[in-house]
Amino acid sequence: MFSAAARYGDPSVALGVATDVIRLQLAHRSVRRFGPRDVTDDELTALIAAAQSAATSSNLQPWSVVAVRDPDRRARLSALAGGQEFIAQAPLFLVWIADLGRARRLADHAGTPLAATDYLESTLIGFVDTALAAQNAVLAAESLGLGTVFVGAIRNHPERVAAELGLPRHAVATFGLAIGAPDPSEPAGVKPRLPLDAVLHRERYDVDAADAHHATYDERLGAYQSRYGLSGTWTERVLARLSGPESMAGRHRLREALEGLGLPSR
Amino acid sequence: MFSAAARYGDPSVALGVATDVIRLQLAHRSVRRFGPRDVTDDELTALIAAAQSAATSSNLQPWSVVAVRDPDRRARLSALAGGQEFIAQAPLFLVWIADLGRARRLADHAGTPLAATDYLESTLIGFVDTALAAQNAVLAAESLGLGTVFVGAIRNHPERVAAELGLPRHAVATFGLAIGAPDPSEPAGVKPRLPLDAVLHRERYDVDAADAHHATYDERLGAYQSRYGLSGTWTERVLARLSGPESMAGRHRLREALEGLGLPSR
Repeated sequence: MFSAAARYGDPSVALGVATDVIRLQLAHRSVRRFGPRDVTDDELTALIAAAQSAATSSNLQPWSVVAVRDPDRRARLSALAGGQEFIAQAPLFLVWIADLGRARRLADHAGTPLAATDYLESTLIGFVDTALAAQNAVLAAESLGLGTVFVGAIRNHPERVAAELGLPRHAVATFGLAIGAPDPSEPAGVKPRLPLDAVLHRERYDVDAADAHHATYDERLGAYQSRYGLSGTWTERVLARLSGPESMAGRHRLREALEGLGLPSR
Repeated sequence: MFSAAARYGDPSVALGVATDVIRLQLAHRSVRRFGPRDVTDDELTALIAAAQSAATSSNLQPWSVVAVRDPDRRARLSALAGGQEFIAQAPLFLVWIADLGRARRLADHAGTPLAATDYLESTLIGFVDTALAAQNAVLAAESLGLGTVFVGAIRNHPERVAAELGLPRHAVATFGLAIGAPDPSEPAGVKPRLPLDAVLHRERYDVDAADAHHATYDERLGAYQSRYGLSGTWTERVLARLSGPESMAGRHRLREALEGLGLPSR
């Protein structure tokens, strides 16, 4: 069901306008089981050209990407990223790098001081621009019939991932993206999201409106998850995921790790 | 010219595979002059449904969006965001919010402690997931014949923007997005990006390969810019933009501002 109804888990929802692009976006799901077909080099090139076409703050282009195909390296990255098997199984694993190193090296070469890159603002620009680029790659991949899944757990061990990928100073892996042909046997569908009115505000943020939909959403997501044998409400999952530093798989020390890699959060 | 050749400013570049989605992505440009036609509510709904369809870390959905149509509010936001006129001129201005407040309120309601949201990792998740969502909205808008431009300057005065939009605690404007029908009289085209080999690495990051293309790119971007009466190389612009806290339009204090808004970078 490629529709807004599936996206919201609400049969009464329909869009007044749509395009093929929007229909493809609505049909997005994370793919965690991949078939045997490879991702070709032509496809990889197209994904990166799509990624580079996304907007970037002041045209800084503060990101890079490492395409990992080597099975041994994928296995090592899988172990560093919470042991998620699909990283080892996907034919292609892209590691997206927030890369302030390029500008720093330009400055070194020019003998010019560069101070802005020490600030949290610049790290956030790096992460945001990397994400804009990666989302374009995701949709490009889906338009080619491929499937993807983001891997935030690549931030569990930033220094070890940087060493594995030979990253220069001032560069850090923001997230991974496993890519391949979806295995149709995977039991998964379009996951319902919060009702539109919970996230869209008009003119000013309305807290009551934002929070009025949680029970409805717990119900809709529950109905979806029970189809795949999963239990637990959204509320319970959010609270568990964010309960404390112990729930962060080591990422509570990300600020310290970033500083060590040359991206201080001044 | 909707092509990889335009995207790279290099007539010799062509993709081996492409789709309509990829061609639309390659044709992206920032639009800063808008025609009179409005963005309908149906279109707005479709953009947000597209945005919500993007991946989100652990299904946290840690973002919200405020749709601003009121001309007075747009004028005030324009003044807060570096006086960029197109914010006042565009019929619709979306302010994208990294929103850890929803989870915090869920926790308050449940009487559960929530510690992870105090860490930089959670702020980064908020910014990244907001960016993934917004990029889907951008492409959805372009598929509807609309144009967009991101506004990072919305971070110049985070507290005043939060007050203008009535944001609750633990929420911050990440960037704005002006949306409208492109005015065809605007002198602008597809801006060339760094050569693919400058950003794409295989297996491990190759610093020499990354840095081998700067002169070529300065030349290609220069050729593009001279068509629009602009001068200065990419290298010069990057170095000026990142030279020091003075070049950051107030955003050198973003970490402090985030802390004040309830998003500490622990």
